[in-house]
Amino acid sequence: MSPALTGPPRPGGDSRKRVRPAPRACHDEAVNAPSAVTTPATTRRGSNLPRVGDYNQVVVLEAIRRNVEGLSRVEVAALTGLSPQTVSNICRRLLETGLVEEAGKRGVGPGKPRTLLRLAPRGRFAVGVHLDPALMTFVVLDLVGRPVARSVRPLRPGLGPEQVLGEVAQEVAALVAASGVDPDRIVGLGVAAPGPVDATTGTLMRPPNLPGWDRVAVRDVLADATGLSVLLDKDVVAAVVAELWAGAVGGPGSAVFFYIGTGVGAGLVLHGEVHRGTSGNAGEMGHLITGPDGPPCSCGQRGCIGEVCSPRTVVETARRRGIAGLDAPDRTGPGSPAREDADHRDVVGDALGRLCAVAAQGDPDALELLEDMAVRFAKAAADVVNLLDIDQVVFGGPLWEHLAPVFLRVVPELVRSSAVATPIHPITVRGTSVGADVAAVGAACLVLDQAFSPRSATLLVTH
Amino acid sequence: MSPALTGPPRPGGDSRKRVRPAPRACHDEAVNAPSAVTTPATTRRGSNLPRVGDYNQVVVLEAIRRNVEGLSRVEVAALTGLSPQTVSNICRRLLETGLVEEAGKRGVGPGKPRTLLRLAPRGRFAVGVHLDPALMTFVVLDLVGRPVARSVRPLRPGLGPEQVLGEVAQEVAALVAASGVDPDRIVGLGVAAPGPVDATTGTLMRPPNLPGWDRVAVRDVLADATGLSVLLDKDVVAAVVAELWAGAVGGPGSAVFFYIGTGVGAGLVLHGEVHRGTSGNAGEMGHLITGPDGPPCSCGQRGCIGEVCSPRTVVETARRRGIAGLDAPDRTGPGSPAREDADHRDVVGDALGRLCAVAAQGDPDALELLEDMAVRFAKAAADVVNLLDIDQVVFGGPLWEHLAPVFLRVVPELVRSSAVATPIHPITVRGTSVGADVAAVGAACLVLDQAFSPRSATLLVTH
Repeated sequence: MSPALTGPPRPGGDSRKRVRPAPRACHDEAVNAPSAVTTPATTRRGSNLPRVGDYNQVVVLEAIRRNVEGLSRVEVAALTGLSPQTVSNICRRLLETGLVEEAGKRGVGPGKPRTLLRLAPRGRFAVGVHLDPALMTFVVLDLVGRPVARSVRPLRPGLGPEQVLGEVAQEVAALVAASGVDPDRIVGLGVAAPGPVDATTGTLMRPPNLPGWDRVAVRDVLADATGLSVLLDKDVVAAVVAELWAGAVGGPGSAVFFYIGTGVGAGLVLHGEVHRGTSGNAGEMGHLITGPDGPPCSCGQRGCIGEVCSPRTVVETARRRGIAGLDAPDRTGPGSPAREDADHRDVVGDALGRLCAVAAQGDPDALELLEDMAVRFAKAAADVVNLLDIDQVVFGGPLWEHLAPVFLRVVPELVRSSAVATPIHPITVRGTSVGADVAAVGAACLVLDQAFSPRSATLLVTH
Repeated sequence: MSPALTGPPRPGGDSRKRVRPAPRACHDEAVNAPSAVTTPATTRRGSNLPRVGDYNQVVVLEAIRRNVEGLSRVEVAALTGLSPQTVSNICRRLLETGLVEEAGKRGVGPGKPRTLLRLAPRGRFAVGVHLDPALMTFVVLDLVGRPVARSVRPLRPGLGPEQVLGEVAQEVAALVAASGVDPDRIVGLGVAAPGPVDATTGTLMRPPNLPGWDRVAVRDVLADATGLSVLLDKDVVAAVVAELWAGAVGGPGSAVFFYIGTGVGAGLVLHGEVHRGTSGNAGEMGHLITGPDGPPCSCGQRGCIGEVCSPRTVVETARRRGIAGLDAPDRTGPGSPAREDADHRDVVGDALGRLCAVAAQGDPDALELLEDMAVRFAKAAADVVNLLDIDQVVFGGPLWEHLAPVFLRVVPELVRSSAVATPIHPITVRGTSVGADVAAVGAACLVLDQAFSPRSATLLVTH
């Protein structure tokens, strides 16, 4: 294994390695600005005009991004509080760099119609990959967050990290080529992986779900292999960012997004900002105890949600109880390519999907199992809601579509009746519309977010 | 009961009622600025110079506050990045309004010695009160957060909210008079109360620990009765603010402060900012399950930390197991004033203190009980640490001094071995030095904090 793959994390390193100096002024400014998430809350400095200028450019871009129908320069000035001259200068730069485009004219009152500006969807792109233990998912998103290309590849258990990351780099190049996107317009590559990660150094520590990946410098290896700027984040952090972009969570309050896939985890948006925690590993909730019974967990307790509500445990319990219809018909012969693909699909997830179908057809045992799962998630959700005073609970992830009917019948009432803040503010419980690719999409959104979103900390130099 | 006591919460109200227009420019500016905590994260506006001016004044004040030895104007300029002329103007205003004072001169190099500026401790004061169900605590803090006066009064169970708040107003006036502080220099009154609270409207909802207090408009009632600006916050939020001021938590990372008193709760500091949640009720952790056994909780589960680790439960268990030495010698006759005072002291807390003393003398049953309590707190702490990726765990509150020896022997290793981020960053577990008055002190700190701390959101107008 090469030193680059196994090097120790470098404290204080930038969270993003820039390998290829990009010639885009706006992008450079945004990347060089400190992010709100990693800025230490030490003594803050006053603001100086050059920085305000950079910040205002991102603020203008954000105002335009939020108004998909298009905004006139006058409207941008009104929304941002900036002077018409400042807005005019910034918009000229944004047009020149291809981030913004003209979107027709709108007449208001007796004056001449005003030219509308909107985000140029094909002005920039970002690539996202989700290193799920079963399946790697790749997406290319345009600047407004729409997928323009997608692929999946099995993460073959026999391969070491170096080989897997080599395959990732190959697949990224192949997907970009197939998408027809100008490679020069790709802002970067976001990688979502199971934790623990060291987001500061872009290192994957020793994730229980990826055996053999011990202190792998994913960011640096992929930056060298792809020539792209790379960031690494934990899968649930990436997933909740996708939810934020899709509008499933957000607003002034606080939200928890429960990801249900191969594992279960929580993504947190607190007061409108993604909460990463000290090292980017927030969202571990597997050992929240949901009740006295359940199979023994590795921690020595019973009833830990990560154990008792894992798709694997639920499917095993269903099999043990003799619930029929969980296994897929075997349509492939041994050794055939189709069989190999099937081996690397999410077999457990598929079985859980069939369990949900059996329950929907009225099987009382299947229904009881799923209701128990929902009650336990409601308990964990209530714990998180009470600890953080959260007003939005969202469920999602690749298995959500199957679980939604039972969960949405059971969970909302239980959460509301357990939340101490119920008399003060509404608590919404709902499912997301972002599908199985949520973590890969989120990884790409993180790249766009880091490059183009305003953060108040860009005004504040820390030292 | 007057309408003012029972009025419904007013959505969107300012979190602080200003009853007496204060003639202090700096204070007014700070109070009128939106706080980072309550600012919705909607479209942000660019910064304009007049606002930057207000903000810079608070930034200068903060720089001076953080350097208790004193700072020269040149050093302020270097630290804040502001121009010497701006710093000079701001410092003149701060001196005129009495917030800052000169603190001698310091010679550096061949030039003339530079005048040092420091916070004027007696430039402003704040009053804090903790409405603990057993005992009300009152403090007056100076501008640097030092208590200059303190008193306690029983919260007599027979009285209604209106009478209790009348007593609070009387005691505030009496304490301020006794302290010798100029009433015109009192910035405001902070109230810490058991949740749920509606911090936006300053209303105490229906706290389980204060029966009969249903939608009591504490802020408005006390503002009318005292003539002071009043803010209401949840007790654990106030407590963690006191810890933040005392330097027990803070820095760039995230911290949880476990408050152990009549109840147990968690105060959260995430990325250097106090986390209040959607309505100021973050920190409820009473139903985190710590294991399969324990007395039944009102929620239907067993092992909830708020039930199994409450001082009342621990003391009851100790009595049931025949552990001797828990009861105080009765030195007072029935009906005597001393007896009445004793009735309103924290009887359960005192018994827990004696249990800890018995354990320290080597009683194995007492020790086992306390170790079980510590193991359960370690489990809850690990859950919170993993959910939020926290790097600092601090225990405190009025009962902490008794529990410290056992907890500090048991908890740190258990938390570290359960935290997924342990390979990435250190996780410190320690006790606080802020004593039994932590919530009252924190309530007063909140007043100072709201008036005088820089918040990046003051730069950002929202709409």
